[in-house]
Amino acid sequence: MNLFIDRLITKMTEKDSRICVGLDPHIDQMPEYLMLEAGVREAKSQAEYLKSVANAIISFNRIIIENIKPFTAVIKPQLAFYEQLGLPGLKVFKKTVEFAKESGLMVIVDGKRNDIGSSAKGYYNAYLNKENDGKKLALGFVKADALTVNSYLGFEGIEPFLENEEAGVFGLLRTSNPGAEKVQNLMMASGKRFYEELALMFEEWGEDYCGEMGYSNLGAVIGATCPEELAKLRKLMPHTFFLIPGYGAQGGGADDVVAGFDINGCGGIVNSARSIIFAYRKKLYKDKYKEDEFGLASAEAAEKMQLDINQALKKAGVIDG
Amino acid sequence: MNLFIDRLITKMTEKDSRICVGLDPHIDQMPEYLMLEAGVREAKSQAEYLKSVANAIISFNRIIIENIKPFTAVIKPQLAFYEQLGLPGLKVFKKTVEFAKESGLMVIVDGKRNDIGSSAKGYYNAYLNKENDGKKLALGFVKADALTVNSYLGFEGIEPFLENEEAGVFGLLRTSNPGAEKVQNLMMASGKRFYEELALMFEEWGEDYCGEMGYSNLGAVIGATCPEELAKLRKLMPHTFFLIPGYGAQGGGADDVVAGFDINGCGGIVNSARSIIFAYRKKLYKDKYKEDEFGLASAEAAEKMQLDINQALKKAGVIDG
Repeated sequence: MNLFIDRLITKMTEKDSRICVGLDPHIDQMPEYLMLEAGVREAKSQAEYLKSVANAIISFNRIIIENIKPFTAVIKPQLAFYEQLGLPGLKVFKKTVEFAKESGLMVIVDGKRNDIGSSAKGYYNAYLNKENDGKKLALGFVKADALTVNSYLGFEGIEPFLENEEAGVFGLLRTSNPGAEKVQNLMMASGKRFYEELALMFEEWGEDYCGEMGYSNLGAVIGATCPEELAKLRKLMPHTFFLIPGYGAQGGGADDVVAGFDINGCGGIVNSARSIIFAYRKKLYKDKYKEDEFGLASAEAAEKMQLDINQALKKAGVIDG
Repeated sequence: MNLFIDRLITKMTEKDSRICVGLDPHIDQMPEYLMLEAGVREAKSQAEYLKSVANAIISFNRIIIENIKPFTAVIKPQLAFYEQLGLPGLKVFKKTVEFAKESGLMVIVDGKRNDIGSSAKGYYNAYLNKENDGKKLALGFVKADALTVNSYLGFEGIEPFLENEEAGVFGLLRTSNPGAEKVQNLMMASGKRFYEELALMFEEWGEDYCGEMGYSNLGAVIGATCPEELAKLRKLMPHTFFLIPGYGAQGGGADDVVAGFDINGCGGIVNSARSIIFAYRKKLYKDKYKEDEFGLASAEAAEKMQLDINQALKKAGVIDG
């Protein structure tokens, strides 16, 4: 039961939740009052500016986590949003991961890191290192449950991340952006699409890392915006768990993601960021909640997403009604 | 002359150097005396350990930069080695970039970042943002000259990084690891290899970002360990500048990289990390230099690499002898 993928499935089952909340703090969508409280308007240098924005973000993230935790098992912070704030942002990223874990949530760091050999090992150390408990003399930045990585470098870009059986890896397979098709759907001499060839490799690469529930510690990222591919890949990859981004703001809906699940309603987790964490800005919640009640709007949006997906799976006859 | 690629070529021409030095501080290869001076042995907690290792690394990097700067126009720090040291490591990464720029060197950040939309913009902000000069209220972590990115997401994963004409992007095309072949050399329905299809896209993607010397701000990473591919790609991509890793420790030699250059001896830069920065550990330099003279060994190794590559190009009749 120490395997990442078994822990993930167990936690999702306990909460009856197939959602993951992306903690991607877009600065221009942050609640104004938090920015004011953090002193963003008074910043006189870049250093002051970055620090105050980072402070607003940690307050924001804490409130979001508190509010959404009944409805999700997992959060997925996107590193880019923290890196752009320099060291204050990275500090806040670390605090966010720690706070989420203290709150009983699992954390998938969305870094899409990719490298080989000693550099891959460096990223492993930074985000997944088993020894990194803050006490021992170990390398490490944060101790997350999983990391997204790119698979273009082949197995040498994946294997170093699988060293710790308590941690998982999600490799990019078929991404949710419209332009991805041009690269990832290229037709091969074999008659398969490129992503299908890669899918078969994923199954092979993950073989030695399978848990008790039949899924491996090597998952795949497959966009909610390509339901046809999702269906095809679910059949092609019976041992690969899917992380499905692109729900909500990017266009994918509950009916689109059904194909990503197996006959037991398992095998996938659907991510949404903006439409949950910035729900307070949406028409649906704007009149109901004040700006400083943004956490309540997020809670409602998270619960809605949780139920919408479960409902769609019931409708499709995948899980019991 | 503000274009990244024109600045790069000009600087390389001035120094008559086609090398790039990778600043990848492998902890187990660091000079012992620097680790002792930084108090690594006395560290009692993870925080103390990471901080002391990071302090040893900044001392190390400064000495390396001082010593190699006559022989190279560019350094390429690999982010993984700094991220694994957490916040102290990231602080030292920032100091390294700043010190290199003060020393008149250009900096390619090897982060192999990859994402789309607002996340890609976040990474752009972090590493290449034009406004990030430390004074203005701008987003930013370091202000590098270029960043390596993954191209698997298509043009949407490249375009956001090309916004600042003063900064460049190197997309992964054909990497230097043995396992890369299995993914990147897959045969397409078109009769081309996958990396060749991607190469044609690179040329198209870079078209609007060409400088005065005929090369674009979108470069490609192509390993020194695959000289055949290098030759093929040089012909296929007349407007794409190559960043060629895998020289030295990974197996590529001066004769292997010749094919990456155009008929003017331009169009490529060859990276080596370990065999330069840890030259003091090599048989060739071990007897000549003491441990605390590691900088001198690096200078000699850098000069040797510079001359070896120029010599190989002369031998091949590419540049004048």
